[in-house]
Order: sequence, then C-alpha cells, then structure tokens
Amino acid sequence: MVSLVGAGPGDPDLLTVKAVRRLEEADLVLYDALVSGEALRHARRAHCFFVGKRAGRPSVKQETIHRILIQAARAGRRVVRLKDGDPFVFGRGGEEVQALAEAGIPHEVIPGISSALAAPALAGIPLTHRGLAAGFTVVSGHAEEAYRPIVSAIRPGASTLVVLMGLGTRTRLAQVLLQAGWSGHTPAAAILGASTPDARTWTGTLAELPDAPLEDSPAPGTLVIGAVVALAPAAAEPAAVARTH
Amino acid sequence: MVSLVGAGPGDPDLLTVKAVRRLEEADLVLYDALVSGEALRHARRAHCFFVGKRAGRPSVKQETIHRILIQAARAGRRVVRLKDGDPFVFGRGGEEVQALAEAGIPHEVIPGISSALAAPALAGIPLTHRGLAAGFTVVSGHAEEAYRPIVSAIRPGASTLVVLMGLGTRTRLAQVLLQAGWSGHTPAAAILGASTPDARTWTGTLAELPDAPLEDSPAPGTLVIGAVVALAPAAAEPAAVARTH
Repeated sequence: MVSLVGAGPGDPDLLTVKAVRRLEEADLVLYDALVSGEALRHARRAHCFFVGKRAGRPSVKQETIHRILIQAARAGRRVVRLKDGDPFVFGRGGEEVQALAEAGIPHEVIPGISSALAAPALAGIPLTHRGLAAGFTVVSGHAEEAYRPIVSAIRPGASTLVVLMGLGTRTRLAQVLLQAGWSGHTPAAAILGASTPDARTWTGTLAELPDAPLEDSPAPGTLVIGAVVALAPAAAEPAAVARTH
Repeated sequence: MVSLVGAGPGDPDLLTVKAVRRLEEADLVLYDALVSGEALRHARRAHCFFVGKRAGRPSVKQETIHRILIQAARAGRRVVRLKDGDPFVFGRGGEEVQALAEAGIPHEVIPGISSALAAPALAGIPLTHRGLAAGFTVVSGHAEEAYRPIVSAIRPGASTLVVLMGLGTRTRLAQVLLQAGWSGHTPAAAILGASTPDARTWTGTLAELPDAPLEDSPAPGTLVIGAVVALAPAAAEPAAVARTH
C-alpha cells in the first residue's frame, strides 16, 4: 500500500490528522524539499529518504521514485510519498498514481493544504470576496509557454490570479499580464515562507512587482495578483510583514 | 481571540493538527452546515452553535455571526469559527476577518482543505497534469453573473475548471461553456460527498453533464471540467463510483 500524502505549506501543525497517522504507521517515507523535519518526526519507525529538488533540480529521477514506491510496496512495506502542499497541485502526483495503477499497487491520495490557498489566507488575503473576485486561477510561473495561454485569457478584474513558483520569473510574468491588458495599478502580493516562522509578505502593485525587494528565498514564494490583495491587513502577520505599499 | 478555522471537505481526519488543537481549547464554536459531528467531538469543553445554511438559506445572518464572535471574544472566551473547507474560499471569511479587525479583536486564520482541490484529488483527478492542464480556475456556480465573465474568458483546453456549488446550475453552466467555444466532448466529472462514506463520482462529457443522473445531494457537489478528468481511475473509489462514461 502506497499513500500519496500532502504535507501542507510548511507548518507541521498544518498536516492533517490522517497524514500524521499514515506517517506514524509508515515503514518507508519518500519526502520532498519543503517538508519540515518536524513533520518527519511523526514517522518514528520509518526510513525516510529525500527525493525532492536541490537547487531547482530533481535529486532523484521521477522514474526512480516510481520504481522505489513499487518495489517497497511489493515487499510489503507501508510506504508514504510525502509531497509539498497538495499531491495533485503541480506535484506530479498524477504521474505517480498512474505508475502505481499500472503496476497494480494499491494506493490512496490524502489531500494536503496547498500553498496556493494557504499562503494568501495566512497573509490575510481572501482569494474570493464579494464585489472584488468571484473566482481564482492558479498557475505555475515555472514555464512561460505553460502559463501564458492561461493568464493572458483571464479577464482582468474579474478574478484573482495565484502564481506558484513565480518569484524568479515575476518580471516576465508582469510583462505578460500588462500586455494582456491588466492595469499596472492592480494590487499584487508576494508571500514568502508562508506558515513558517520566516513568513514575509510584500504588497504593492503589478507594475512594482518586478522591482519588489524580494531577496532570494530558499522556499518558493506565492504571488497573488488582483483586487483582493488590497484587503491584506498588516495585522495578519504583525511581526513579519514587509510592506512597501 | 477568534480563530477562523477550515474544517476541510467533510472527513474529520482531514482536519489539521492545529484545527484539532483549537477545537480542544475552545469555549465557543460557531460551525457551518457541512462540518461533521465527529469534528465537533474535539470541542469537548465548548458550546457549539450551528450558524450555517439550512435548505440553501442562512440560518443566522452574517451580521449576527459577526456580533456573536466579537461579543464572545470581548468576554474572554476562546472562540472558533469552524467553516466548511477553507475559510477564505467562497466562505465569506474575508468579511468576518474585516469585522473582527474593525472591532479590534485579535484573530487568526487556520487554512483548511478546500473541496475545490480535495474532491478531484480523492476522485483520482489531478487538477494539473503535464500536457493536459498547466493550471486551474475555481468558481462558484451559485450566481451566473459572477461566474460567466470568468469562465467564458478561459481558453478551452489550456486549464481545468472547478465549479463549487454548481450541481443545481449545471445545465446553464454547460450552456455558457459551450457558447464560449468549449467542445461538448470535454471530459467532465461531478463529485458528490467527497471524503465522506457516501462519496460518488460521475464522469462523462460536458455535453452529457446537464442530464447526468445526479440525484439531489444534501452536500454540495464539485464539478470538474477539462482533459484531466479522463485520468480519473475507477479504482480511486472502487465501491462508490457511478460511471456513465
């Protein structure tokens, strides 16, 4: 049996009750880069192996992860694949499930809290709000050819845009949005280290986003662009908010 | 102190560790319609009051909820506002935070697992998947004037559409999408009672969605429309899947 488990945005207390239980029972845990050491402490009897990305590159090939999961399950081990955030949001969880299904290995998915939703929430930004946004779109900022068709079609002002893994590509992202007709005055936020003791939030405008003073962060940040960002209260994270707005 | 806490999609084991702790410490809990009785069992010392919707109508006015939260906090009670899914996704959590901030009441937001993400995940549908969808959009199906500008702008085929509270309005939603250029062959799913023992998933096409045999469900269902739906394995919920595909 293999459990694909979402570890949430970083704070080990944002693991679900079910995730903790699966970790406690596990014989083997394969974990990603942002998973906290405290989360792994629940896996008292398990061997824990890091299979995430180091410096943006996979430390272990996706196919190797599949092979380890399958072999360990066939050997009768209880296996947990512990993934950042939610296993099915930009986590290649779909590919891991496909590989397990093709190999005939029983498996389950235990959802986790995605930083796409948790980072804005913890910064005091509701993704939807009456009169400001009736929906939201989530993309990865990793590859322009992937996000451009999606974000350039969004009607500016109707909904909120959330960009994961977009800190390093924010200059180009802002250009794409401005070319698509978004106003440079659209409120924008960058949330770093959400739910961790190092959490910081920058707020400003879309035009200011490229020059936002965001030092390189080991944890990928979450960008939020849309009118709802103006609701972010400094009070939400009093000790940790960097505001340039 | 008031904690706005996400209760997740229904399964009490999908509460976070932090949510359980806040419930255990609470003096007063105001909870919504989909919160399970088992979740409330953690609130051993609290008075628990239902303030959600009955038959689609609020049982308690939003302003009354604000007043109770503020008065109880001022009286020194530890208050938990326990909301379905995530407090900031179509939950009016933003309005509650605004009211607390204006009254000077210390408060916090504890994210929960939104059924927008958990329902597809538990049905075996990854919202993003290489080559099929590089992002996703979430709307409420409750009001056409709110969702139409958002969904009609989406470029069909580029991303996944998730619709909460859209079971009852699915005929009109399908019309809007077909008029906006979506193919009637686009895979579609309706997920009812996600994460509960009564979970059921229907899969078919966008053209078939209006006539999908979905009996009235007390729990609002989640609609997923896009190529990723074709990845839904019957194996994901073997005992409970109704497939017409």
